[in-house]
Amino acid sequence: MPALIIGGSGFVGRNLARRLESQGHKVVVLDRNADETGSLTGRLIQGDAQDAEFLKTVLAEVRPADLYHLAANSDISAGVADASLDFGDTLMTTVAVRAAVEQVPVERLVFASSSAIFGISESPLGEESDQLPAPVSWYGKAKLASEYVLESLSARLPDLPILAVRFPNVVGPLATHGVVFDFVRKLSKDPTRLDVLGDGNQTKPYVHVAELIDGIQFFRERLAPGITRVNIGPPDLVDVKGIVAEVCAALNVNPEVTYQDSPFGWPGDVPRYEFDTTKMQREGFSINTTSRSAVRRAADNLHAEWLTK
Amino acid sequence: MPALIIGGSGFVGRNLARRLESQGHKVVVLDRNADETGSLTGRLIQGDAQDAEFLKTVLAEVRPADLYHLAANSDISAGVADASLDFGDTLMTTVAVRAAVEQVPVERLVFASSSAIFGISESPLGEESDQLPAPVSWYGKAKLASEYVLESLSARLPDLPILAVRFPNVVGPLATHGVVFDFVRKLSKDPTRLDVLGDGNQTKPYVHVAELIDGIQFFRERLAPGITRVNIGPPDLVDVKGIVAEVCAALNVNPEVTYQDSPFGWPGDVPRYEFDTTKMQREGFSINTTSRSAVRRAADNLHAEWLTK
Repeated sequence: MPALIIGGSGFVGRNLARRLESQGHKVVVLDRNADETGSLTGRLIQGDAQDAEFLKTVLAEVRPADLYHLAANSDISAGVADASLDFGDTLMTTVAVRAAVEQVPVERLVFASSSAIFGISESPLGEESDQLPAPVSWYGKAKLASEYVLESLSARLPDLPILAVRFPNVVGPLATHGVVFDFVRKLSKDPTRLDVLGDGNQTKPYVHVAELIDGIQFFRERLAPGITRVNIGPPDLVDVKGIVAEVCAALNVNPEVTYQDSPFGWPGDVPRYEFDTTKMQREGFSINTTSRSAVRRAADNLHAEWLTK
Repeated sequence: MPALIIGGSGFVGRNLARRLESQGHKVVVLDRNADETGSLTGRLIQGDAQDAEFLKTVLAEVRPADLYHLAANSDISAGVADASLDFGDTLMTTVAVRAAVEQVPVERLVFASSSAIFGISESPLGEESDQLPAPVSWYGKAKLASEYVLESLSARLPDLPILAVRFPNVVGPLATHGVVFDFVRKLSKDPTRLDVLGDGNQTKPYVHVAELIDGIQFFRERLAPGITRVNIGPPDLVDVKGIVAEVCAALNVNPEVTYQDSPFGWPGDVPRYEFDTTKMQREGFSINTTSRSAVRRAADNLHAEWLTK
């Protein structure tokens, strides 16, 4: 029985499909978009993941054991300006998945949640904190609502294991967006200058997509019925100035770098957050790669892609 | 122990508060807005129902037995133009209620859902149809997602009874919006002409708020643990031309009436829908008043309010 990846033409989806295929699994991707990178070797079904009837038909035909729901708006700042992007692409895809799975059950459901559900907080936020999540962006709000929407399946399908993995910033090959992707693209075009959004002090955890997928696979193996929420993250943070340094080193360039006054990279940005990964480690999974090393590795990956395309 | 009505300064909330108080219950209202009609005699807490921490504080202080969640964007057509209205006021209020109730449980949770969750359909839609809901408006999408968000409480609080009542078009005294309200207001100002949005053929079920509340109280008495979804509606439909006739009769006016070409009253409108009330009737509740009679009664109510204000 194949794995079905909804949103499998996106950044994490492409990497997950490649991983699963390299492990000998059959993969079917459902996405609105074609796979522009040509990285996918399996079947691609193009269609609208907000359409519950369509999803139901796909589930009934593909009969996946594992369903990965990675479909979402990937441009958080565009979503801040236009709430319909996250309402539709991030939340209503989840509502459709939930409705379709209720009628055509799967064996396991894995959902890409986000650190953005926490919002701005003084302290690192964990999975079982008494502090209630207070997302800032529509993206974060849509991901928080999505966790609850999927959890509602437990009332109908109590034996279904659901894994909600909260991603921090994710970097790596086959990226389609994000700060490392932007810097590599800009500097590959013009290595003499780099205009940075925000003051360069935004400080966040970054994980390499390969290690994120290690974590997803670790927890997927150990799922129990009901929803399991887990933060997967690196041991530390890196600021944007550090990202600039790593990308410049990877590309071997020395541009004039300009920053802005605002601590926010864009409206809805969370300038600094920490991620409590105590639960992840307690369950036996750890990431030792620092955020800075993950960024460097991703910059090397993306630079190589740029050079060969 | 009091009842807490979130969104109790709105149309249905005002009527519910009045009903509960007339029955000798203590009522606390939480709303962003003051009660402009002066219909509320109990305590009003003004605040933002999207703020889960605030809601938690209110629940811990008020300790309601029954929690009625009626907060929502009431202007569906404005929400079609700006998705943030329903994302925030209709859905994120529900997400906050769900998060707060998980930490400070109540005895019963009653939620104002909507016929808008069904969208455009050929056949009357029931609670247990195999046909998946396909809401058109952001309002309908937010209400559908909200049902799932609240259902997720059942995974955490399996003994909690949750009632999700799907309202059709609701009319009656203390209204703040809607077609009957608009017509009464327009014709009270200028009884010589009435400009109608759409072609006048939009045909829908209308229920008087007093009978809707009868239904809510009927099902609230009979709740079991978990979520109960029920459509509460009248036995028939009425078209906009019929509504015009009833409002004109109530106000004793004979205006020149103009219609438009479009079958849609506004973008996101569902021009015709039928509501399957088989479950409601099977459980022992019925509404015998026709949609046309409900509209007439509401027009009389609203005309009397207009004359005395």
